[in-house]
Amino acid sequence: MSKSIGIIGSGSWATALAKILTDNGHPIHWWIRNDETIRHMQLRHHNKHYLTSVYFDTSLLSLSSDLSAMVAACDELVLAVPSAFLEDVLSLLPPDALRNKKIISAIKGLVPSNNDLIGQYLYKQFELPANQYFTITGPCHAEEVANEKLSYLTFSGASMEDTQAIADKFTGSFLQTIVNTDVVGVQLAAVLKNIYALGAGIAHGLEYGDNFLSVFIANCFREMQSFLEKYEEQKAVVAGTSQMVHNYSASAYLGDLLVTCYSLHSRNRTFGNMIGKGYSVKAAQLELNMVAEGYYASKCMYEMNRQIGAYMPVAQAVYAILWQQVHPSEAFLSLEKGFI
Amino acid sequence: MSKSIGIIGSGSWATALAKILTDNGHPIHWWIRNDETIRHMQLRHHNKHYLTSVYFDTSLLSLSSDLSAMVAACDELVLAVPSAFLEDVLSLLPPDALRNKKIISAIKGLVPSNNDLIGQYLYKQFELPANQYFTITGPCHAEEVANEKLSYLTFSGASMEDTQAIADKFTGSFLQTIVNTDVVGVQLAAVLKNIYALGAGIAHGLEYGDNFLSVFIANCFREMQSFLEKYEEQKAVVAGTSQMVHNYSASAYLGDLLVTCYSLHSRNRTFGNMIGKGYSVKAAQLELNMVAEGYYASKCMYEMNRQIGAYMPVAQAVYAILWQQVHPSEAFLSLEKGFI
Repeated sequence: MSKSIGIIGSGSWATALAKILTDNGHPIHWWIRNDETIRHMQLRHHNKHYLTSVYFDTSLLSLSSDLSAMVAACDELVLAVPSAFLEDVLSLLPPDALRNKKIISAIKGLVPSNNDLIGQYLYKQFELPANQYFTITGPCHAEEVANEKLSYLTFSGASMEDTQAIADKFTGSFLQTIVNTDVVGVQLAAVLKNIYALGAGIAHGLEYGDNFLSVFIANCFREMQSFLEKYEEQKAVVAGTSQMVHNYSASAYLGDLLVTCYSLHSRNRTFGNMIGKGYSVKAAQLELNMVAEGYYASKCMYEMNRQIGAYMPVAQAVYAILWQQVHPSEAFLSLEKGFI
Repeated sequence: MSKSIGIIGSGSWATALAKILTDNGHPIHWWIRNDETIRHMQLRHHNKHYLTSVYFDTSLLSLSSDLSAMVAACDELVLAVPSAFLEDVLSLLPPDALRNKKIISAIKGLVPSNNDLIGQYLYKQFELPANQYFTITGPCHAEEVANEKLSYLTFSGASMEDTQAIADKFTGSFLQTIVNTDVVGVQLAAVLKNIYALGAGIAHGLEYGDNFLSVFIANCFREMQSFLEKYEEQKAVVAGTSQMVHNYSASAYLGDLLVTCYSLHSRNRTFGNMIGKGYSVKAAQLELNMVAEGYYASKCMYEMNRQIGAYMPVAQAVYAILWQQVHPSEAFLSLEKGFI
């Protein structure tokens, strides 16, 4: 019998993943914080807040706002809450709650309180061993999953076999999966790309054009690669993860950077665009009513890179704009000369 | 006294380069095939066919349709005609016409009759030595130069010093320049990117979305890198060029690929889009009234890669669609599974 799989979170990404699994006929447990959202979904067969066009076969859904009970019922759990809320959500669980479970992180960010990768955090809090930890990375906008446009997800884990078995549940008519063991690399790339997409948005807001944007993104990719190389060089082996494999994945590294920088669906890009146009961080957050992962990511990576010491002028500039009140046009002017 | 610089060609790219030089106050010789276009430019101060919004200070322009006379008057010549017309245009010149001149190729393509890089062709036809040959590559759409959006040009040549001196003429308020010695690498990358942009257009025409496009382009970049590595491995040293330097240029490799694949200004993308929507090659050419470099490039690279032997599924698929009547959706279906 197939293992019981659950999704924690009810945003657009969680909703897209729920669609992918249920479209493949897999029954799922689904933790949704808000009982009203659950009632609405049972009645109307869709998430009233996100990807509202996606209709669910509710016979495949076990919806619950009781996290402990939902976790207890699952062998495999997909984490799909914003990184900023992860600690808060999981604080509801006892320390042994994840014993023998496979945890699949679909979170694109670090834990803000201490800059841990999600796997590190789960190891510290729940003693989750590396071979029970997996990641889902892009490139994949939830909106296109809703529209059933062919998309790719990258699954990473310590064992190719276990990772493939998880990926197989997601592979379907509009979804291809890529499997590798680069658990740390894909997570770091996913965090960095949010910073760069926010930067691309700022550039757009500052009215730079396509020519500049292409130079900007090409140099971001180079910066991403040099950070990952430096990270690896320093043998910054991460507690609770197997090792630093860093086998280059075109889609999870560059593809995810591209879709996030170029797509109009990207929240980081939209947020950055407002910053470039002169909005304050607070005003942009209020206006968009959402968290842009790149905002937190820029601070996390700034702090992480104090130890790594990679040359990261773009990430540094985005940090300075968002957290040190440096004027966007000034920060970009100093970037312009350094591109190769 | 500053050396006399000339531009050969009157398309949008030639016009953009003429604007860049004259905006910096450099007088230029400009060969334009059509006397009516010349008369119009003298009267109305703009190119009636391309970038019509760009107005020229005609006191800086020596316009001529007499190629031999124009070439004789210049120490430095910028070639800016489509690669498909190059042989035809230069056939007007005697074999010693380029002696002691610096030739700066702004052509993004190979010579169709024999797949030579432009430098190779000039070496064979005019005995042009490697140290007199330079290239201008992107990423740079002419349309954004016309609008004075900050853009980057990459200059490559055997000597950094000579190349820098040429680049300095172009550097200006809306134009940054990048200088390197990777003459062969940037040319091959520029040819390949046209094929991939045409492919991106086909994908768009087939109604793939942003998620797919990002995976497609990321895999194209990987393919480009593996071709260049293989080319280098095989020590395919090119007659008439210095050596294979292949120092990675973020902007000329990835940046140019991105701007060509993503920008709506891209002719290759537009052409590909029509192919994806079911137009024949002939119909697309008639409708657009232009040559998409990627069309010829796909054939050139297909033939070149018979010797290099790199694994190039995307370039192969584009070739099969354009030259072997393979149906676009069929060719893309077989690509889908192979992306990483």
